Amino acid sequence: MRYAYLGPEGTFAEAALRTIPEVAEGETLPQRSVHAAIEAVRSGAADAAVVPLENSVEGSVASTLDELATGGPLRIVREVLLPVTFSLLVRPGTAAAAVRTVATHPHAEAQTRRWLREHLPAAEVNLTSSTAAAAVAVGRGEYDAAVAAPIAGARSGLAALAEDIADNPGAVTRFVLLTRPGPLPARTGVDRTSLVAFIRDDRTGALLEVLTEFAVRGVNLSRIESRPTGERLGRYCFSIDCEGHLADARVGDALAALHRICADVRFLGSYPRGAAGAPPSLPPGRDDAAFAAAADWLRTLRAG
Amino acid sequence: MRYAYLGPEGTFAEAALRTIPEVAEGETLPQRSVHAAIEAVRSGAADAAVVPLENSVEGSVASTLDELATGGPLRIVREVLLPVTFSLLVRPGTAAAAVRTVATHPHAEAQTRRWLREHLPAAEVNLTSSTAAAAVAVGRGEYDAAVAAPIAGARSGLAALAEDIADNPGAVTRFVLLTRPGPLPARTGVDRTSLVAFIRDDRTGALLEVLTEFAVRGVNLSRIESRPTGERLGRYCFSIDCEGHLADARVGDALAALHRICADVRFLGSYPRGAAGAPPSLPPGRDDAAFAAAADWLRTLRAG
Amino acid sequence: MRYAYLGPEGTFAEAALRTIPEVAEGETLPQRSVHAAIEAVRSGAADAAVVPLENSVEGSVASTLDELATGGPLRIVREVLLPVTFSLLVRPGTAAAAVRTVATHPHAEAQTRRWLREHLPAAEVNLTSSTAAAAVAVGRGEYDAAVAAPIAGARSGLAALAEDIADNPGAVTRFVLLTRPGPLPARTGVDRTSLVAFIRDDRTGALLEVLTEFAVRGVNLSRIESRPTGERLGRYCFSIDCEGHLADARVGDALAALHRICADVRFLGSYPRGAAGAPPSLPPGRDDAAFAAAADWLRTLRAG
Amino acid sequence: MRYAYLGPEGTFAEAALRTIPEVAEGETLPQRSVHAAIEAVRSGAADAAVVPLENSVEGSVASTLDELATGGPLRIVREVLLPVTFSLLVRPGTAAAAVRTVATHPHAEAQTRRWLREHLPAAEVNLTSSTAAAAVAVGRGEYDAAVAAPIAGARSGLAALAEDIADNPGAVTRFVLLTRPGPLPARTGVDRTSLVAFIRDDRTGALLEVLTEFAVRGVNLSRIESRPTGERLGRYCFSIDCEGHLADARVGDALAALHRICADVRFLGSYPRGAAGAPPSLPPGRDDAAFAAAADWLRTLRAG
Repeated sequence: MRYAYLGPEGTFAEAALRTIPEVAEGETLPQRSVHAAIEAVRSGAADAAVVPLENSVEGSVASTLDELATGGPLRIVREVLLPVTFSLLVRPGTAAAAVRTVATHPHAEAQTRRWLREHLPAAEVNLTSSTAAAAVAVGRGEYDAAVAAPIAGARSGLAALAEDIADNPGAVTRFVLLTRPGPLPARTGVDRTSLVAFIRDDRTGALLEVLTEFAVRGVNLSRIESRPTGERLGRYCFSIDCEGHLADARVGDALAALHRICADVRFLGSYPRGAAGAPPSLPPGRDDAAFAAAADWLRTLRAG
Repeated sequence: MRYAYLGPEGTFAEAALRTIPEVAEGETLPQRSVHAAIEAVRSGAADAAVVPLENSVEGSVASTLDELATGGPLRIVREVLLPVTFSLLVRPGTAAAAVRTVATHPHAEAQTRRWLREHLPAAEVNLTSSTAAAAVAVGRGEYDAAVAAPIAGARSGLAALAEDIADNPGAVTRFVLLTRPGPLPARTGVDRTSLVAFIRDDRTGALLEVLTEFAVRGVNLSRIESRPTGERLGRYCFSIDCEGHLADARVGDALAALHRICADVRFLGSYPRGAAGAPPSLPPGRDDAAFAAAADWLRTLRAG
Repeated sequence: MRYAYLGPEGTFAEAALRTIPEVAEGETLPQRSVHAAIEAVRSGAADAAVVPLENSVEGSVASTLDELATGGPLRIVREVLLPVTFSLLVRPGTAAAAVRTVATHPHAEAQTRRWLREHLPAAEVNLTSSTAAAAVAVGRGEYDAAVAAPIAGARSGLAALAEDIADNPGAVTRFVLLTRPGPLPARTGVDRTSLVAFIRDDRTGALLEVLTEFAVRGVNLSRIESRPTGERLGRYCFSIDCEGHLADARVGDALAALHRICADVRFLGSYPRGAAGAPPSLPPGRDDAAFAAAADWLRTLRAG
Repeated sequence: MRYAYLGPEGTFAEAALRTIPEVAEGETLPQRSVHAAIEAVRSGAADAAVVPLENSVEGSVASTLDELATGGPLRIVREVLLPVTFSLLVRPGTAAAAVRTVATHPHAEAQTRRWLREHLPAAEVNLTSSTAAAAVAVGRGEYDAAVAAPIAGARSGLAALAEDIADNPGAVTRFVLLTRPGPLPARTGVDRTSLVAFIRDDRTGALLEVLTEFAVRGVNLSRIESRPTGERLGRYCFSIDCEGHLADARVGDALAALHRICADVRFLGSYPRGAAGAPPSLPPGRDDAAFAAAADWLRTLRAG
C-alpha cells in the first residue's frame, strides 16, 4: 500500500498517518498539496491518502471538502482524530527578542493568532504551504521562527522556544483516509457516513427538507457545512456527516430519500468513528429490525 | 356475489349499492345495522357490504370507523359518492299542519335540523335505526312524517310533502364497499388508500410525526379523523385517507414508515377514487421512477 | 345564574351540572336538545349551559362541536369529567326474558352495543332523544327497558335489571360549561384552551403547518378533531384542545400564529382542566419568562 | 468618517470600499489584516471597516465570521457585491517562461488553482497576506509574478501577463461595511439580516428547530454556515443570513424565537441587499399587516 499525504515530512498529516498501524508496512508518499495527495489516489499513483477534513477550532478544511465534492469519486475508509499542539520553533540559540519573522501555514496561523499578537506583537507573519515547510524554511535561515508541530522541530534540527502555544488548548484535527471506491469498511455499530447533497435550486426550504429526511429516520448529523457550488452567490451544496453506516437500514433509507429529492448526492463513505463511543441511541422504530418488519408487512399487504 | 347493506329497502345505502353495475347480477342482503352488515362479511354470510364512511355535512360515521379499526380485517375495494337529498314523506292526504311527529335516522335529523325547526317547529322528532325504517313506520301509522330518501317514498307508498329539505343542499355521502382481504384493486392512477394509525402513547408530537412521514414523500391526506381507542380520554387512533395506491412507491414507503413508528397500523385498502379527477401532482422525486432509481443507487453503493 | 342543560331531569348532563357547587344556588333549565341549551345561552334565556363535548369511548360529540364552531360566539369556562355508568332500567317486576324492546339515546346505544347483543339478542333497540327520555317512556309503558343513567331510575320509578352494562367500563364523558364571552377564567397553571381552526383551502400541508405552530412553541395538543365545514367532501375545519391558558405567552403566541396562517380561528376559551394534574413540562425557552426576555431583547435591538 | 480596510492599497477590499459614494469624503485607513480592520472599529480608531464575508467560489471567509461571532458587538450596515477578476502581474518585460515563483493570497490561490496548474505547472506558489502585498513583493523582485486584482498592477507598476485567470469566471465577493452598534439602516423592502445562533448543546435536532422557526414565519435563508465554537469537535454555532429587516414583523419574531430556544443569538445587522432585487414573496399571513392583526386579535381575546 502506498499512502500519500501533505508533506514534507513533519506535517500533522504525517503524524495522523503514523497512527494507522498498517502504514508501518506500506510506503509513504509526501505530496506538495492536499490536491496533489488526492490526485495521487485518483490517478493510481497512490492507494490511499490522508487529508485533513476539519479542525475543532478552524472548522472545515474548505479545499478538502471541495476536492471531495467534485472530480473522480473517492471513499473515506477511516478517520483519525489528532490532538493538535503547536510549538514556536527556532534555530538553536535564537532568543525571543530576535524573532522578527514567523512562518507558518494559514490554519496554524489562525489557531495561534492571539498568542502571536501577545508574545510577538512586532513580528511579521509569513504564510507557507505547510507547517513543516515553515520549519524547513527556518532551518534554511529564511525566517526567524516557525509555528509547527513538535515533530517538525526534531526533523529540521530546530529548538522549541515555546510549546503548546495554540489559542485553544485541546484542539483536534480530524483527518480522513481516502481510497478509490471499493468494498465498504465493515459496520462496527459506531460508524459515521459522509456525503455531499446538491440542493435543487428551484426549491425553497430545500435544506429543511434534507434535514427532515434524516430526522424522521432518527439519524443524527454530526456536521453540516454549506459550500458554494461556484456558480453564483447563494447557490450551495451541503457537506454532511451523519451517525451510522450505509449498511444501517435507516442510513441507507435516508440517503435514498436524498437521492430522490436532491439534484445530486455524492456518497463519500461509511467508516468507524475515530473516537471510542457508544452506538447512537435510536428512537423506537429506527433500527434494522423495525425496517425489516415494515418491509415484510408491506410485501404481504401488496401481495393481497 | 352477495352484498350486505343497511336495510330495509329504500335506504341511502341501498341507493349507493345500486350504483355499482355488478350488483345487478348479485344478491342483496338488507341488514339491521351497519354492524350487522360488516359482520355478515366477516362471517362469510355475505361477500361484500356497502357502508357509509363520511358525509360532507355530518362528517365521519363514527360507528363505521370504529368497526373497521377493530375486529377481523376487512378491505375497502370501492367507494361511491352519493348525493344526498331528503324528502318529507307522509301518508297520502296528510297536510303539513297535521304533522305532529316526525321520524328519521339521527344523521338525517342532523342534516335537516334547521328545516324542521323552521317549517315544523312544534313537531316532535323521533329517531329510528334508518331513514327507510322511518318511512315504514309512517306507513304503519306510528308517526305522521318521515325524513328519508325519495326512493323510500316509492317503496312505502308515501307522498312527498316537501323535497330537497337538507339544510346544506349538495350534501354527499361517501359509501365504501368492503370485502374480506384479497388481491388489491388494480392501480388506476387516481386512487385512494385508507388506514388506521395507532399512536404510541408514550410519545408526544406523534401526530406531527405521522403527518411528516406522509409530507416528506409527497403524499396528500384527504381525510384525517381522531377516534378514541376507548381506553381513556386523550388516547386516540387516527383514521386516515391519503391519495394514491399501496402499489405507488411513495404510498407503500409512507405506510412502512408508519408501521415502524406507530404502535400499530391497520391497512384498510387501496381503491379507485369515486369521483373523476386528475392524478395527484407530485413534487419532484416522489414518483415510482425516482424511488426505483434511488433504490438502484443505494444497492450499487452498498455493493461497494 | 340560570343553567341550561339537555333534559329532562335524570340525564348525564344534569349529573354533570350537579357536580358544580355554584349550581346549588342557581336555577336549572332542562332543554329539549343540545342545540336548545346552547341557544338559550346565546339568546340570554340562560346564563350558562352544560353540554357534552367528548366521550372516552364514543369520541367527540359532533353536534356540540358544530354548534360551537358557528353562530354567536360562546366561551368554555369550565370542564367536568363525568364517569359514565349505564343501567338497564325496567318497570318493577319485569323479568329479563320479558324485555322485547329497549329504548336509549344513540350514544348510550353505542356504548352498550356488545352487552345488548349478548344479553338481549332478540330485543329491538329504539332510539330516543336522551337516556332520561327513554326511562320516562319505559315508565309510560312504551318500551320494556331503558339504557340510562342510574339516576334516571330513581327519578322515573324504575328498577335496575342490570348495572354497569357499558362495554368499556371506566368510560368518561367530558362536559363543558358555556357562557357568553366575558373575562377569562383565571390561569391556574393546569389549564386547557379550546379553539377551531379553519384551514385556508388553497394550501396543502395546512394541517401540518397548524401542528408545527403549536410544536415549535412547546404547546401540547390533547385533542384534535376534523369536522366538515359542510361545503363539500374534503373541506374541513379542526377542533382543537391544547394544554395551557391564553394568558400563557406560548399559547397566546401560537394562537396569534394560527390567526395569521388560517382562514379563520375561533377561540372557544381557556379554563382549568377537570382532572387534577401536573402543569405541562415545557422544553427550554417556552415559558413566560423566556418570551418576555426575547421581547425585551428584540425591543432593544430595534431601538438600535 | 474613517474607513478601515485590509490593505495595502490595491486590495479587493479597497476596490469594494471605493464603490461606496460617501467614502470619497472620508478618510481611508489600510490595515494589516481583517482582524486589525475590525479591531480598529471596536477601539474607535476607525468608524467603519470593509471586510470580505463570502465569495461565490471560495465560500465564507472563516476569519471574518469568527471575528464577528465573538468580541465587542458590531453591526453590518451595508453590503457590497464585488465582481472578482484576477490578473497575473509581472514586472514589465517578464516572459511567461521566466515565471518560476508566483505569490498571492490563499483565497486568490484557491480561485486560480486550475489556471496555475495548467499554465504554470512548474511554478512554486507562495502565500502572502493579501493580493496587493503579493504585487508589492513582485515589484520588489521577491517573486516573479503575482495573482492579484487588476488595480494592484497599476498601483505597483506591474504589467498583466494574463487577465481574467479565475477558474470560475463571474466570481463575486461579498463585502460588508461594519460599524459599532447604532440606529439600524432604514428598511428598504429588499433587505438582509445577519446573525449568529449558538445552539444549546444538549438538544438534538437543534438546527432543524432553528430552520423551522424561520420557515413557519416565511423567512428565507440566503446563507447558513456552521462554525466550530472552538470548544471541541462537534460543537458548532451557525452563521445565518436571512431575507428581510429586523423591523419586519416576521424577521423580528423569528429572531425572538431563536433567542428563546438557543443558548445565545448574536444580531449582526439588517441592511439593504447589495444587488437590485424584488422584495421577498411571502406566503399568506407573513406580512406586517397580518402580524399586527393577529396581535390585535390576541389582545382583544385576552381582555375578555
